[in-house]
Amino acid sequence: MSNMLPKLFFVHFCETSFIAEIDNQTVGFLIGFLSQTHPEEAYIHFVGIHPDFRRQGLGSVLYETFFQAVRRFNCVRVRCVTSPVNKSSVTYHLRMGFEAETSETQVAGVPYYSDYDGVGQHRVLFVKYLP
Amino acid sequence: MSNMLPKLFFVHFCETSFIAEIDNQTVGFLIGFLSQTHPEEAYIHFVGIHPDFRRQGLGSVLYETFFQAVRRFNCVRVRCVTSPVNKSSVTYHLRMGFEAETSETQVAGVPYYSDYDGVGQHRVLFVKYLP
Repeated sequence: MSNMLPKLFFVHFCETSFIAEIDNQTVGFLIGFLSQTHPEEAYIHFVGIHPDFRRQGLGSVLYETFFQAVRRFNCVRVRCVTSPVNKSSVTYHLRMGFEAETSETQVAGVPYYSDYDGVGQHRVLFVKYLP
Repeated sequence: MSNMLPKLFFVHFCETSFIAEIDNQTVGFLIGFLSQTHPEEAYIHFVGIHPDFRRQGLGSVLYETFFQAVRRFNCVRVRCVTSPVNKSSVTYHLRMGFEAETSETQVAGVPYYSDYDGVGQHRVLFVKYLP
C-alpha cells in the first residue's frame, strides 16, 4: 500500500501527512498540506484506507490527527475535493463535518463544480471550519 | 494541455506555479512549491511543455521564473526527482545546473536511488543550489 505514496509528500509535507500502521503494515494514510497561498487554510489531498481496515474509524482518526496538526499552524479551514459520483466519499465528508460549497449544478442535492479539474472532471468542493 | 493540471496546485501553490500561454493557448507549465518541512528548500513537482513548443527555451524561462520566485521566500536549494531512464530529463536538469545526489547505484555515470518511489520506481534526486 505504501507504494501508492509518492515520497515527496512525506519529505516536504511531513508535519501534515500521516501513515497508520498496524504491526508494521501500512493500513492507511492521509496526505495533506498547508495552503501556501491562503495561510489560514489546509488541504487534504489524498486519503487511503486498506480494504481490510475500512469501517473501523481509522479514517476519522487520520482526519482528526490532521485537524489537530493544522490547528497548530493557525489554520481555521480545511478544504478537499471529491468527485460527485463518489457517493461514499461525499457522504463520508458530510459526516466528518465538511460542507459542500454552493453551486448551481447539483446531483442528489449535493452541489458540484462542472469540469473543475478538466473536461468531465466534476468536483464537489468541501470545506470544514475548524472549531 | 491545461487538462493535465489539477487545479489544487494553482489554488494553493499559486506563487510558485506558472502557466506559459501564447495567444491564450497553454504551451507550458511548471508546478512547484516551497517545502513545508525544510523552509529553505523548494521543490519542482511537474513540468510540461507542449510538443510544438519544445527546444525553444520555454522550459528554461519557466525554471528561471521559479528560481526567482522561491528566492523571494529565502530558499537556497531547489529539488526535483526524475526517472533514470528518462535520459532527456536527466540531461536537461544537469544543463540547468542541478546535481544528482550521490548514490551507490548508477546508470551511465548518473547516480540514482533504487525503489525510491516504490518497487521499480527508481529516481535520480536532483538538487540545485541557488546563486
